[in-house]
Amino acid sequence: MTSAVSAPTVSTTSPARGLICRACGAEFPLAAQHACFECFGPLEVAYDQAALARVTRADIEAGPQNIWRYAALLPAGQNPDTRVTLDPGMTPLVSAPALAERLGISAPLWIKDDSQNPTHSFKDRVVSVALTAAKELGFKRFSCASTGNLANSVAAHAARAGVPSIVFIPADLEPGKVITTAVYGGELVAIEGSYDDVNRLCGELVETDEFEDTAFVNVNVRPFYAEGSKTLGYEVAEQLGWRIPAQVVIPMASGELLTKVDKAFSELVEIGLVEAPEGGWAVFGAQSAGCNPIAVALHNETDVITPVKPTGIAKSLNIGDPAAGAYAIEAVRRTGGWMDYANDDEIRAGIRLLAETTGVFAETAGGTTVAVLQKLVASGKLDPAKETVVYNTGEGLKTLDAIAGQVGPTHRIKPSLRGAREAGLLG
Amino acid sequence: MTSAVSAPTVSTTSPARGLICRACGAEFPLAAQHACFECFGPLEVAYDQAALARVTRADIEAGPQNIWRYAALLPAGQNPDTRVTLDPGMTPLVSAPALAERLGISAPLWIKDDSQNPTHSFKDRVVSVALTAAKELGFKRFSCASTGNLANSVAAHAARAGVPSIVFIPADLEPGKVITTAVYGGELVAIEGSYDDVNRLCGELVETDEFEDTAFVNVNVRPFYAEGSKTLGYEVAEQLGWRIPAQVVIPMASGELLTKVDKAFSELVEIGLVEAPEGGWAVFGAQSAGCNPIAVALHNETDVITPVKPTGIAKSLNIGDPAAGAYAIEAVRRTGGWMDYANDDEIRAGIRLLAETTGVFAETAGGTTVAVLQKLVASGKLDPAKETVVYNTGEGLKTLDAIAGQVGPTHRIKPSLRGAREAGLLG
Repeated sequence: MTSAVSAPTVSTTSPARGLICRACGAEFPLAAQHACFECFGPLEVAYDQAALARVTRADIEAGPQNIWRYAALLPAGQNPDTRVTLDPGMTPLVSAPALAERLGISAPLWIKDDSQNPTHSFKDRVVSVALTAAKELGFKRFSCASTGNLANSVAAHAARAGVPSIVFIPADLEPGKVITTAVYGGELVAIEGSYDDVNRLCGELVETDEFEDTAFVNVNVRPFYAEGSKTLGYEVAEQLGWRIPAQVVIPMASGELLTKVDKAFSELVEIGLVEAPEGGWAVFGAQSAGCNPIAVALHNETDVITPVKPTGIAKSLNIGDPAAGAYAIEAVRRTGGWMDYANDDEIRAGIRLLAETTGVFAETAGGTTVAVLQKLVASGKLDPAKETVVYNTGEGLKTLDAIAGQVGPTHRIKPSLRGAREAGLLG
Repeated sequence: MTSAVSAPTVSTTSPARGLICRACGAEFPLAAQHACFECFGPLEVAYDQAALARVTRADIEAGPQNIWRYAALLPAGQNPDTRVTLDPGMTPLVSAPALAERLGISAPLWIKDDSQNPTHSFKDRVVSVALTAAKELGFKRFSCASTGNLANSVAAHAARAGVPSIVFIPADLEPGKVITTAVYGGELVAIEGSYDDVNRLCGELVETDEFEDTAFVNVNVRPFYAEGSKTLGYEVAEQLGWRIPAQVVIPMASGELLTKVDKAFSELVEIGLVEAPEGGWAVFGAQSAGCNPIAVALHNETDVITPVKPTGIAKSLNIGDPAAGAYAIEAVRRTGGWMDYANDDEIRAGIRLLAETTGVFAETAGGTTVAVLQKLVASGKLDPAKETVVYNTGEGLKTLDAIAGQVGPTHRIKPSLRGAREAGLLG
């Protein structure tokens, strides 16, 4: 399956022309390959720019209310009949005036609420693209290394498609994410170690004969997987009326989501679907204090990431050795953005602040991003007079433990008017 | 607020012409009134049929991707600027061929997956309509009596709208539903009693001076609230290409959802938007064995509901004294449907069966409905050769405890190829 010569390839209507090494620029055919044969650098999808340039706003607007409206800008899934998908995407862009006021932001502030995807995280986007490519490439089993949300999504996609799955997670995940993966009935392997251990093992398993027919969405089909994140850039631009916001704040685990939103904006400008905003756009990255290797590298004015052993409640961001960290730093530097990180108490406060002001209940990753937004405003790194979009990538129901001790009933009463009166509810 | 003379009324562009008593037919103006002044019977919204008949498929299809595309068929919310809403609706209608095969159903089977609403249950629909009406009627605080999902939805809607909320729940609710309400920062009152106790107390509070400005979505603005459920009928018909399915299976708590889906189908036929299917449509109701007063009354060939003290894991269905039970029985009898109930083990199995075959993770209410579907096929009450739509009204993440002991990792290994080999993952 790793040979590009004999393996099946993705749809002939794909605008992708091949895979390209992000380090040395070497090009390879579209296949299940994730590292450069020349320099071992990471690969990403390269497109036929002429094909992309033929896409119009009207084409997109006439498409379905999900990520597949952008199929002509994605490497796989042009044919609806061969998609492996829960049809994620077109999640709400929520106006957040009360949150803006609380933070001293005078320009429009928006929450891109990706908790509203089918399995309640942005991972449904990348999984739909990866597994659709995987099916086109002939794989017979679906897999991933996951901090939780990805496990949920791969198991659910496999169940919908009727394809076997085997999912790898750290043994200490939040119960919500374990049950929500196991319920779909696939194999679920708990590994006694960190996410980085899980990822390393999957990198070894993918080379074995027993896993030859297995697509690991974030290992051997990673270039396709990563492209799914572009839809979080496309949608924001379309939902703003085909405009790119001046500032975006994005949570970072591997750092890939941040680079792909930036790539999406660049593509939209290049192919003429939107005009670049005056002064360009600035990309900001959010990590937790328990796992902040990318932000620390930026603060230390280097692009060499020093891996860390993750701690803290933002488990979905706990990738201590982030694959796309250096690329995230490049994007942030190039666009004039910044990165920062929040500790567990700040993350909890971020979850509550977002919920109270917008009605959006985020998981710890979303709390992290809101807490970092607050820091970026306070430090002057983010301009409160410029339009800003904050990405919430997951659902609070999956990380209830994080705030379980902090919120609860404000009153407990007997079932009578007398009980209500004694609790002060009747003045 | 209960006087129709001096109170503000809903939008003048509303197609609603007043409230009508379901028992005696007496009519009243559109106001915050839920019981007939003549006979104390329950009120529902009556429409100007001529106004409804002007609505076209094209009007609806040009509307937003949420319940408000049907605003011209609802009692409030015609003006987008005055809506109190998270924009719920247009949830997926999921084809379920693998589930059909497992159950011996030969015709198309669909899951209407309403876990995909903003707070992950169908309650967002009724709350959006009720609170929009409440705002138009001049209320200053939002409230409800809830088994959990309604509490989540009211608290989130209030946070988004910046309006105070006070929500009443039984003290023994699932932790997920308590935290997911409390996080929005409103008042949350835990009552030491059953849902029926909570509901009774809210009926008393609404008459007090201190609650004069408070809209209880399912008490004093209940007629508006109930109409929101019609959108679950409209959407299924539109998503099937403007057709009504031959059979629908719907979970019952108060019984109101079932009656309103049936009402929606009737309206669509009356105003000429769809043709009635040959042989009409049959409506089936699902309860749990721990709270089955409506189904038992039907089985006993009466329409007098004997209240029960609810037990069992399907807490969102645990209304022991269901307000619309007799009307649900009427709809089921009239359409040639049936009702049945499932015990806790069957409900758990229903959750897992649905997840494994469709990728949809339902809360206990959805497991109940799937388990009852299975019984209805086995007993011959539901025709496996006719197209069927099953309603999943809530999200599995909210009732994790129900299956926490049943599903989990299939393997636990050390982070090495040797660990994988010892667990049998490498043949």
